[in-house]
Amino acid sequence: MISARHRLLADAALDVLARDGSRGLTHRAVDTAAGLPAGSTSYYYRSRAALLSACVQRLVEDDHSELDALTPLITATDRTTLARSLAEILHRWLTTGRQRHLARYELTLESVRRPEVAAQLHRSGSALRERIAAVLAGLGAGDPPRQARWLVACIDGILFDNIAGANATTPLDADGVDAAARDLVDAVLPGR
Amino acid sequence: MISARHRLLADAALDVLARDGSRGLTHRAVDTAAGLPAGSTSYYYRSRAALLSACVQRLVEDDHSELDALTPLITATDRTTLARSLAEILHRWLTTGRQRHLARYELTLESVRRPEVAAQLHRSGSALRERIAAVLAGLGAGDPPRQARWLVACIDGILFDNIAGANATTPLDADGVDAAARDLVDAVLPGR
Repeated sequence: MISARHRLLADAALDVLARDGSRGLTHRAVDTAAGLPAGSTSYYYRSRAALLSACVQRLVEDDHSELDALTPLITATDRTTLARSLAEILHRWLTTGRQRHLARYELTLESVRRPEVAAQLHRSGSALRERIAAVLAGLGAGDPPRQARWLVACIDGILFDNIAGANATTPLDADGVDAAARDLVDAVLPGR
Repeated sequence: MISARHRLLADAALDVLARDGSRGLTHRAVDTAAGLPAGSTSYYYRSRAALLSACVQRLVEDDHSELDALTPLITATDRTTLARSLAEILHRWLTTGRQRHLARYELTLESVRRPEVAAQLHRSGSALRERIAAVLAGLGAGDPPRQARWLVACIDGILFDNIAGANATTPLDADGVDAAARDLVDAVLPGR
């Protein structure tokens, strides 16, 4: 459980990461983004490692909130509902969630040189994939843990391509998102 | 066509990007990585933008070389061959190609704040996807341009997950790579 001030600063750090990248993330830039006096971020997060870790934690909380909202819609139903829910979430992440995912990509690349952040990403990512595997198991997937890992990686690849990658200048429209979601579901669930 | 010296420096810049990230990429760091006197990189690439653009160009050349080697193996044959070729290339990119892809992810994120690099990534990425669409068309895919875009995004998502993301600490083994490749092919080609 973190304080409101810790949370405010972590969210400001995510904003800085999305806007200026890992190169632009400094304690001072976070002070400014949060509208707080110089030194505030250093007071609450002594090191860059502590600040990065708080950012990951905030992203993980949001991921679980999304899944909390999504799971009851899917578990008892069918592949069409899964594809529709997936398309909705892809569409949201490509639009209002764009900045959040940009910040996540910056954090992820920095984790390559920070084993403690990499371990945190692995733990939280595994917990998320376990929840998705449970959903897939309920829908009759043949190998839920493996397929959840595959599905999350592919979803993230589609986000990356349309948020930062070769297609960031021409992101998928609504029909494109629907088709991408259907292909993902066809690949993980039997009996199309 | 670029000179050998330009190429050497661009390759050194890619090494710096993979090792130290976008934050660590400076003209001076590239001089050192290339084993050349201070000022060499600045002489050949005046601006950071020019250096980044050269890095993208080198990656694109490698991508096309890979496709040149791969295409004759696939076009005249079947889905099993496609899945096997895809698994081979995924395995190579996750091992010996890991640094190159890390450098690419760093460049891609920096392109978010550099429209000229984003435009270059879009042009080169589109050319690559067109070649892959031609392969898929030859194998009977229903909507090759759309499916090539989907396939490249998903391949990249699998790479990202295992190179930098939540599973970088536990990358796919050979069986996992084979299964991931089969799922991708099942999703893009009819009649599994």
